[in-house]
Amino acid sequence: MEEKKHNRFAELFNSQLGQENPKGLSPFGNWLGGVLTHYEKGKLEKEYTVRHEMTNALGTLHGGAIASILDEIIGATVISMEFSHFKTTVNLVVDYFYPAYEGQVLIAKGLMIKEGKKISHLQGELFLKDNGKLIARAITNMYTTDLAVDLEPLFK
Amino acid sequence: MEEKKHNRFAELFNSQLGQENPKGLSPFGNWLGGVLTHYEKGKLEKEYTVRHEMTNALGTLHGGAIASILDEIIGATVISMEFSHFKTTVNLVVDYFYPAYEGQVLIAKGLMIKEGKKISHLQGELFLKDNGKLIARAITNMYTTDLAVDLEPLFK
Amino acid sequence: MEEKKHNRFAELFNSQLGQENPKGLSPFGNWLGGVLTHYEKGKLEKEYTVRHEMTNALGTLHGGAIASILDEIIGATVISMEFSHFKTTVNLVVDYFYPAYEGQVLIAKGLMIKEGKKISHLQGELFLKDNGKLIARAITNMYTTDLAVDLEPLFK
Amino acid sequence: MEEKKHNRFAELFNSQLGQENPKGLSPFGNWLGGVLTHYEKGKLEKEYTVRHEMTNALGTLHGGAIASILDEIIGATVISMEFSHFKTTVNLVVDYFYPAYEGQVLIAKGLMIKEGKKISHLQGELFLKDNGKLIARAITNMYTTDLAVDLEPLFK
Repeated sequence: MEEKKHNRFAELFNSQLGQENPKGLSPFGNWLGGVLTHYEKGKLEKEYTVRHEMTNALGTLHGGAIASILDEIIGATVISMEFSHFKTTVNLVVDYFYPAYEGQVLIAKGLMIKEGKKISHLQGELFLKDNGKLIARAITNMYTTDLAVDLEPLFK
Repeated sequence: MEEKKHNRFAELFNSQLGQENPKGLSPFGNWLGGVLTHYEKGKLEKEYTVRHEMTNALGTLHGGAIASILDEIIGATVISMEFSHFKTTVNLVVDYFYPAYEGQVLIAKGLMIKEGKKISHLQGELFLKDNGKLIARAITNMYTTDLAVDLEPLFK
Repeated sequence: MEEKKHNRFAELFNSQLGQENPKGLSPFGNWLGGVLTHYEKGKLEKEYTVRHEMTNALGTLHGGAIASILDEIIGATVISMEFSHFKTTVNLVVDYFYPAYEGQVLIAKGLMIKEGKKISHLQGELFLKDNGKLIARAITNMYTTDLAVDLEPLFK
Repeated sequence: MEEKKHNRFAELFNSQLGQENPKGLSPFGNWLGGVLTHYEKGKLEKEYTVRHEMTNALGTLHGGAIASILDEIIGATVISMEFSHFKTTVNLVVDYFYPAYEGQVLIAKGLMIKEGKKISHLQGELFLKDNGKLIARAITNMYTTDLAVDLEPLFK
């Protein structure tokens, strides 16, 4: 049964690899978009394109949209751990380094830094695809709840 | 001229008070929505409604959307300081306490904690309107740039 | 028995009020010093004096010492909640606003912001006593462990 | 003259390499101890031993002492950048993963993540030397002041 669950996690990520519009269960995640380009356990990459509606008054990617993309990649990285119980976000710390403009393509990388029984610590990074510049970085602590994971609705 | 600038800040906020759809200059800010319900120098309140497209797979307000609303209220609070030069966000720290569901109304409060010549520190809080529960809190450090503020485009 | 535990918490704090050198169980806490000047459930005040050995190369209170005092006041505030199980620190976020010099007296304030079953969120603030300036602020998330509290060793 | 300044930075770090008790200018830094074991521009390593007076009531390295060691290694890493003007700490974010006990030896690693003209972002990590476990991690934003660096007092 663990084996079966593992297969379901793998199926889920494999079904999303390279897809422009995977039909995710998260409406805001779908709004942000993003294409999964790499996954392994605890390490993920997605590509995002800066759309006009994600920008601020200065024409650059909004700080909240940056936080949202980083929260998304971290959330997907947690799912890649093939966990049995849901983790909930305790906090999100975002540091901003560099602006991104409409039309630019971003690479978001998620990484599990320290997985604990109760508290896990993850990191997200956001780069400009064309020159590799680090535009922002985030860290998150997550708390493992008692709510068991059921992946089946994701396959409906 | 300082007086005139002051008047322009006041005009700007007064023109937005209670408006459902103020035509802001920030596309992502417009997407998030929000109605300004109170402003004074360094202290702001806005109301937001949780729309379906802001939610996550669990049906609650997405952590990224929470971060975005808090970033917005903090950004508006900085503008209420009637500053002469743009401030840019160094970091955003969000702590999550409680979920919010589709259709719920939120009160976002922004507060200037410490205004420095170079670095300013602000706080944002997000409450459920119906029971006053604190659902999340954020702090931000901002750095004052050399870029002079010109409000006039906001009145076009 | 709950009543008795409550009494023990009250006894503990009462015995420390205004004492220059309470014999605490934390060696580093003792090194930092500090005198408890006020306590109620979830709200504490202590006074600290900046000693030479707490300063940095610029002659001001070391950023690590500031973090330490804030961590201490937050830790004492958690104890004031009369909790039954130990809480462990998940993270500490310190924002620095203003320097403090050798010999200056500081007021440290601790506050419980949000007590949850599993995760609690607290805040610490550090002021200069003579002019009330806020020199630093900290927030912490704590996780409630399964380790039951036994106060009795504190009374030996 | 730039060359001379460079030499002075190198001299400073070389004089400290492997020294048990370098006579630093920071009293609290001296109290924490630590031996420089590796340096290059933007990347440093020091070793610390957990002394009794650094522990808390549970007998483990105090959270404030952990924050202090991380603040120290980050501060030393900034100096290794051979900068011309002092940088001041805007904030310090510490995440705690694992306890350390009296007598244990720790490896502290500092790393410059992103050096900007005005804001720089650094990271510190703290490991148990014997098994390599990551016990805590910190990030810091620093702001470059107008105060010119004069290293000469360090050679007196």
